[in-house]
Amino acid sequence: MYNFEYKNPTKILFGKGQIACISREVPGDARVMITFGGGSIRQNGVYDKVRAALGTRPVIDFGGIEPNPDHATLMRAVDEARTEKVDLLLAVGGGSVLDGTKFIAAAIRHPGDPWELVRKGGRGLQSAVPLGTVLTLPATGSESNPFAVISRRETGEKLAFSSPLLYPRFAVLDPETTFSLPTRQVANGVVDAFVHTFEQYMTYPVGAELQDRFAEAILSTLIEVGPVTLANPRDYESRANFMWTATLALNGLIGNGVPQDWATHTIGHELTALYGIDHARTLAVVLPHLLRVQSAGKAEKLLRYGARVWGISEGDNSGRVEEAVRRTETFFESLGIPTRLSTYEAAADTPARVARRLADRGTLPIGERQDIDADKITRILRASLS
Amino acid sequence: MYNFEYKNPTKILFGKGQIACISREVPGDARVMITFGGGSIRQNGVYDKVRAALGTRPVIDFGGIEPNPDHATLMRAVDEARTEKVDLLLAVGGGSVLDGTKFIAAAIRHPGDPWELVRKGGRGLQSAVPLGTVLTLPATGSESNPFAVISRRETGEKLAFSSPLLYPRFAVLDPETTFSLPTRQVANGVVDAFVHTFEQYMTYPVGAELQDRFAEAILSTLIEVGPVTLANPRDYESRANFMWTATLALNGLIGNGVPQDWATHTIGHELTALYGIDHARTLAVVLPHLLRVQSAGKAEKLLRYGARVWGISEGDNSGRVEEAVRRTETFFESLGIPTRLSTYEAAADTPARVARRLADRGTLPIGERQDIDADKITRILRASLS
Repeated sequence: MYNFEYKNPTKILFGKGQIACISREVPGDARVMITFGGGSIRQNGVYDKVRAALGTRPVIDFGGIEPNPDHATLMRAVDEARTEKVDLLLAVGGGSVLDGTKFIAAAIRHPGDPWELVRKGGRGLQSAVPLGTVLTLPATGSESNPFAVISRRETGEKLAFSSPLLYPRFAVLDPETTFSLPTRQVANGVVDAFVHTFEQYMTYPVGAELQDRFAEAILSTLIEVGPVTLANPRDYESRANFMWTATLALNGLIGNGVPQDWATHTIGHELTALYGIDHARTLAVVLPHLLRVQSAGKAEKLLRYGARVWGISEGDNSGRVEEAVRRTETFFESLGIPTRLSTYEAAADTPARVARRLADRGTLPIGERQDIDADKITRILRASLS
Repeated sequence: MYNFEYKNPTKILFGKGQIACISREVPGDARVMITFGGGSIRQNGVYDKVRAALGTRPVIDFGGIEPNPDHATLMRAVDEARTEKVDLLLAVGGGSVLDGTKFIAAAIRHPGDPWELVRKGGRGLQSAVPLGTVLTLPATGSESNPFAVISRRETGEKLAFSSPLLYPRFAVLDPETTFSLPTRQVANGVVDAFVHTFEQYMTYPVGAELQDRFAEAILSTLIEVGPVTLANPRDYESRANFMWTATLALNGLIGNGVPQDWATHTIGHELTALYGIDHARTLAVVLPHLLRVQSAGKAEKLLRYGARVWGISEGDNSGRVEEAVRRTETFFESLGIPTRLSTYEAAADTPARVARRLADRGTLPIGERQDIDADKITRILRASLS
């Protein structure tokens, strides 16, 4: 096990009716900006519950934060928050709204250009406006972590940044707020949480037994409750398990003291940038093929995963490894998430193009051993396109 | 899954050499009281490392905190800390030192009698002196939770209290600090962490799949690494896994949203009070017999535990339940921890006496269904004494 530091100060308020607790968590005299997306929270009653919990506090609404939140949109919110002297940001939505609100929280008091801060990965942030979150789409873990991914369409950038100052003060996780989600978003969320877990788990063993078992616990739970919550959107228990599992998948806990491999995300982001494919769906078309190309270095963990999560006990090692990958693919497909890039209208030169984009940006090599280069990326995406 | 609130703000500094990080975590001008026990930290070099990390900060030493820390000892520390105007308490030791230091932290600024605060379970605490911890004995989870158990020998009391103000600011977990521990304390620590996990897990299912799987992950890891770390005290990896697992066993995470049954602790505390039996050893002589007496209500979880943790798949339900309990007993015994009260010099009337003490104090009934009364306690302890 590697040395690590870990602190997650976000207060979780989990369960039915917990939106009302916001009244306790927000100072009585705070000026609050509520940030949200396309407005579904106005239809499903979540917005009204949030407003009721805020009582007579002054509230500024900022809606319209888009999927893959855009710098231009967010800077409008920053201007408004500065003008209105906002004390607290309350992000109500899924990962895009939460990530975007982290940018707003960082930018408001930042003396320089906030985009420079993002380009530096968040280094140098001195102060942030406090934020709280009301999660309506379990998937990214953003509700209780310090990470955000922001897009800038005018320059074609999509960058991740983080700062300990950006941990939300509180996160309301009420499974009932997610009952009205479209099936597609729930399926995406299950795959997103699954792949986050994989990227912290599927590398090589470093003797971190508990982290491995916790990761396997998350994967097993997603495999168990994913199909149930997809088929029965209003079943509280399966939705609650999905919601809590997605939070634990990326709150930092399982990544403590272990090597990580975020190559699937890195490659996937390019597919979103080029073709607008949903984030989770890009992960599903990259991961299985990456596992095959990297199977030599990941074999020990793939065998463990196969045995513990899928109960695979037959065949020789290479057969078991392939079976573990195949089961993963089948699981994604069972949720309606394709695992082939050929499903989408991607050009034949996509593999080489993605590899070149990443190489040109100086991102390569990637992977837990820094051995995924342009050639391997091309092979991974060709396998997915075939 | 029940509703829950969860926030654990303790910063974990895990691994070799992390004591040096204290210099970053403690303000440069802080007046620091180092609290410790019998002085083993002076022999094994831990004290010197802590002093080196504190540099030129004014330091007040307070040693001599005993196992089952006593009110009288701790009040002397409170007096000294007030006189010396201590800004931060740094507890270096195991559960007793850490718990005792939480009492000191709570008492220093408390305007009334601190023992009244303990009697009220910690309710009413308005302010506490910040504390940090350097853990040298993995067992109780006190290094990153808000709980403490304090004894008052002059009145024969042993009481638990807690407050969110008592979460340590930071916890240094360096497995190497534990290399010189006596075997007996390591074995006790494994059983203590195991039983903590059981008390948050072994009740009845409420659909909290992830919490169940995390608990099973902790139990499986303890079963795997416990014997290894006992046999090879200087094996870093097994000791590191034991240390991190013991922390996660009682940092609040696995107890979120589930029923709990702390009856084993409640009964065990009486055996410590009457006979001075090590805390963990009291748990080992209570738990298996409690599981048998309560097997009807716990059957569903006992079957799950047996299947997932021990791979029990043969026999009818009652046979599997008994096999799960028997495996637990065998595991404790394999660590050198007896599972029979008859091993100790306990009087024949102990079962009735413990039951009466708890009944007289108004503690009963206990258990997740509040159905463990004096009669059941008598039966549990008689089974252990036979």
